[in-house]
Amino acid sequence: MSSLFANPTSDPAIPPLGQVMVLSADQPMRLDSGATLGPFTLAYQTYGTLNEAKSNAILVCHALTGDQYAAGPHPMTGRPGWWSTLIGPGKPVDTERYFVICPNVIGGCMGSSGPREINPATGQVWGLNFPVITIADMVRSQALLLDALGIDRLFAVLGGSMGGMQALEWATAYPERVFAAIPIATAARHSSQNIAFHEVGRQAIMADPDWAAGAYHAAGRNPSRGLAVARMAAHVTYLSETALHRKFGRNLQDRIAVTYGFDADFQVESYLRHQGSTFVDRFDANSYLYITRAMDYFDLAVEYGGQLANAFASSPVRFLLVSFTSDWLFPTPESRAIVKALTTGSASVSFVEIETDKGHDAFLLDEPELFRIVQGFLDGCAEQYGLAQRSSAQHAESKGPKPRRGIRADLKLIADMIRPGSRALDVGSGDGELLEHLVHDKGVDGRGLELDPDGVHLSLAHGMAVIQGDANTDLQAYADGAFDYVILSKTLQAMHDPRAVLEHLCRIGHHAIVSFENYGHWRTRLSLMLRGRSPIDRDRPNHWWESSNIHPCTIADFLDLTEALDIEIEETVVLGPAGRVAKSTRPTTSANLFGEQAVFLLRRRR
Amino acid sequence: MSSLFANPTSDPAIPPLGQVMVLSADQPMRLDSGATLGPFTLAYQTYGTLNEAKSNAILVCHALTGDQYAAGPHPMTGRPGWWSTLIGPGKPVDTERYFVICPNVIGGCMGSSGPREINPATGQVWGLNFPVITIADMVRSQALLLDALGIDRLFAVLGGSMGGMQALEWATAYPERVFAAIPIATAARHSSQNIAFHEVGRQAIMADPDWAAGAYHAAGRNPSRGLAVARMAAHVTYLSETALHRKFGRNLQDRIAVTYGFDADFQVESYLRHQGSTFVDRFDANSYLYITRAMDYFDLAVEYGGQLANAFASSPVRFLLVSFTSDWLFPTPESRAIVKALTTGSASVSFVEIETDKGHDAFLLDEPELFRIVQGFLDGCAEQYGLAQRSSAQHAESKGPKPRRGIRADLKLIADMIRPGSRALDVGSGDGELLEHLVHDKGVDGRGLELDPDGVHLSLAHGMAVIQGDANTDLQAYADGAFDYVILSKTLQAMHDPRAVLEHLCRIGHHAIVSFENYGHWRTRLSLMLRGRSPIDRDRPNHWWESSNIHPCTIADFLDLTEALDIEIEETVVLGPAGRVAKSTRPTTSANLFGEQAVFLLRRRR
Repeated sequence: MSSLFANPTSDPAIPPLGQVMVLSADQPMRLDSGATLGPFTLAYQTYGTLNEAKSNAILVCHALTGDQYAAGPHPMTGRPGWWSTLIGPGKPVDTERYFVICPNVIGGCMGSSGPREINPATGQVWGLNFPVITIADMVRSQALLLDALGIDRLFAVLGGSMGGMQALEWATAYPERVFAAIPIATAARHSSQNIAFHEVGRQAIMADPDWAAGAYHAAGRNPSRGLAVARMAAHVTYLSETALHRKFGRNLQDRIAVTYGFDADFQVESYLRHQGSTFVDRFDANSYLYITRAMDYFDLAVEYGGQLANAFASSPVRFLLVSFTSDWLFPTPESRAIVKALTTGSASVSFVEIETDKGHDAFLLDEPELFRIVQGFLDGCAEQYGLAQRSSAQHAESKGPKPRRGIRADLKLIADMIRPGSRALDVGSGDGELLEHLVHDKGVDGRGLELDPDGVHLSLAHGMAVIQGDANTDLQAYADGAFDYVILSKTLQAMHDPRAVLEHLCRIGHHAIVSFENYGHWRTRLSLMLRGRSPIDRDRPNHWWESSNIHPCTIADFLDLTEALDIEIEETVVLGPAGRVAKSTRPTTSANLFGEQAVFLLRRRR
Repeated sequence: MSSLFANPTSDPAIPPLGQVMVLSADQPMRLDSGATLGPFTLAYQTYGTLNEAKSNAILVCHALTGDQYAAGPHPMTGRPGWWSTLIGPGKPVDTERYFVICPNVIGGCMGSSGPREINPATGQVWGLNFPVITIADMVRSQALLLDALGIDRLFAVLGGSMGGMQALEWATAYPERVFAAIPIATAARHSSQNIAFHEVGRQAIMADPDWAAGAYHAAGRNPSRGLAVARMAAHVTYLSETALHRKFGRNLQDRIAVTYGFDADFQVESYLRHQGSTFVDRFDANSYLYITRAMDYFDLAVEYGGQLANAFASSPVRFLLVSFTSDWLFPTPESRAIVKALTTGSASVSFVEIETDKGHDAFLLDEPELFRIVQGFLDGCAEQYGLAQRSSAQHAESKGPKPRRGIRADLKLIADMIRPGSRALDVGSGDGELLEHLVHDKGVDGRGLELDPDGVHLSLAHGMAVIQGDANTDLQAYADGAFDYVILSKTLQAMHDPRAVLEHLCRIGHHAIVSFENYGHWRTRLSLMLRGRSPIDRDRPNHWWESSNIHPCTIADFLDLTEALDIEIEETVVLGPAGRVAKSTRPTTSANLFGEQAVFLLRRRR
């Protein structure tokens, strides 16, 4: 057994921190390819302390060129760990609260079994004799590591890019061993374009004569030129055009004019060459082939009969997905596809798309919004999982959310229409006020959809499952009849297409609850009639030209729409002057004149 | 002088079709690098017949890996020319009407002087001794070719990608020699990301030991593996993720399951490998270095003091720019930047963004919308340039636009406010009805901005200069005071932010003319007052939930807005019942009650 950067211990049962573990010693692990592997080695690092109940473990999975040094300094480069911004004492993944485990993947080149290591059966370097592995194989090996560490269930599994693929695989292969999963900037299957980019990198390596058909170790050679080109090609895909433009533009490198030659005239060329040349010092070319291949092969739906939603059916895992606006390698639609499948499978899912120009690399960079969202979600989950707060000293300065009091009167009217213990979706859930009331006081399985990132964050921090999204465009992701109730409160008039939205509400929910301010109120009518001016909102007085109520409607207008869509009105509550409440099945003409607000309980006629 | 695919002629003055021309025989051409070149060879093809006036010539410029065989069959591959869909008898670039010239660029490898050819001074292959050339050098050499052909002025210059760069360079370096320019899917400067991709390709070539520091011809070698990798990397950037997904998805190549190896399991891998291996048969590795470098160096603004608008100041050239929605190599903002600069420089510019998932390659593919737009623009230009129609037989079936009669009454009111011979921008110009009236009947220099592609096409075909764009977002591209009049007809109420739009109108124009339907009309008032329903449009009866009038306003409302923006009303025309017209400086309360439509002539108070 050879390991370059970790010291094997004589007692693998209780290894010290920063150790390697020999696994599958008794019987080899079966791989997806049909081959077997074992005994094999996993190199890993841990940060923080495992509590007595062994309930505070977070598994961190690394990306293509990452390794186990997520938080600590890297033994080769001396630089901080690749996720040291996120993981550490007092950081979002707080190592004073959680026990963080980060293994190097099999197939890697930082001490775990891989093509660079010695094949124990032959005493030779594995090279291309190492079996081709998959994301599922990586996760299977990590499960064996957790067994060895005596950890039955992870509080959370967390990873970006290929790390996110592992997090998804963990949540589907071992749902009972994962309380929460945070796949970041990832996809449920590697796209055609991404396979193409990987193939370019592999061809660059294999075109290098020093690759020697994979046997370069034995030949005393190293395909460093090919690997450098592969890295350069890949590195462009990790950034965004905007980020490159901001960082380098067309600036020249240490010169005042172009040289009319093939030197690195431009800073971006010099930067890329540096990325290529430093990479070959720390990474193994064959590992690059194996790990890119594992990503290419990843297609979670295929493992579940071609339907991604099947992978998550009745999943008990709480998911937080995160994507970045400028990431074109794992663009937001990839995350949204997972969110859609999770939603269809009725899983608990939160999702945030973070606005940034940093491209795919944003998940590794100092991105405060990512930290805030991950911390909020972990706080909410920790409370539900019964994990202790941080030690009292830190507790004092904790910015954890305060418990709520009361609930707004009009939201209370809506809540009263909802059966305890049912499933509800609040479209435009704001800061989660109604949602929390439903969940805590009525035992409702409540979910939210909200556009504003601050609202999403506040909801996550209170343990609510909220998807960042736009009711104008994202309702189609929800399956028919996915909820007992779908709520739209004071938002219909601001929709681009109120008809389509109302159709979706009644499709997704067995019942829909819609509230709005009545544009037919006598004060509104008089404004236009006598003043000759478009009526503006009563609550938020502003000018006609800046109103967000682009489709204001009266109670009569709304009735027209329900008729056009063949929707049944089960109950109407009209709020009149001085908070007077009138309930009925069908509102009257006088309700349209004197009602300030209306709440409708609706049902599509079958 | 060596030429691989064309036969030098003994009399270069009047060459037969598909010829090479020896240029700069008396004195060498000076290059941007300071080096000189000459005598040198340009290989080119022509299609169609040059008319007696020599006024029907269209220069077609090829892209990075293109050549002179734009329309005819390729002598090496036997396949149709790369733009044979666009160029030919009866095609959008009709060779029965136009005389098309397509030269191979210098630095290329299809017969023009380049690194693969023999350096006449040494009798050796140029290799890396060939001087580094720029886009401007390419264009300079083409100008010498036109001189030799006796063509003083081009009817049009046309090209996509790097061909578009040449078209831009032509229009700025030789504005008096170009009537119309059509730069497609291009940019005024090569972006940081694109330099990065090119650098990856060059590094792949130079990493190949068979490149032999560029002297592979002498050494009897060929860096085909490096060139193949370069081509593969580049080819991914020519497509789009959607196109790749549609074409290949994750389909396997002639197998039913993945092989757990590094063969081309996926169709996309097999396709890419094929692209790489066929490319090396037809392209020279050093040419690839030189031509990519020329693109990297392209930055039109730098040639004009850092301001792109200076490049186009008072340009007499008529521009049509085209971009494609899914092109991420030369994305739409690059074209919009050129449009903005042209607009600032008061040049005549039309622009269309074509909806397609085909990526950058769309400009080479069978894209009917591109054909339609180019043909319409050329038709409009040919009429203005006084080019004869096609022969009478074809004329009968010509789909050319019919001349207009009359003009809509409300547009006539607007036209009456406009001084003859002034400059006007019609925001939301529709099919160009008002624009044509202004141009033809009032001698106005009129431009349009229109969202609907059909409207843009119709306008182009009538010779109008129209930019496809959205008044909500694209008005900021226009410089202060760029027009005497800016017109917004019946559109204000549909804008997301009417205040911002009105501000732009009064900023861009010395005067603004705004018309809208009066929401304060008594019928509208009564609809809400008595029926309790939101008023809907009188012209286009529809439902409240589908109205595009998201910010309807009354005459009084509009006056409020002009006051808030400190805008002076110079004239008001109110259309009452039965077409009655009332003119005044300031409309009365009764106008707000009885006026159906209002037209305002406005001016910002300085």
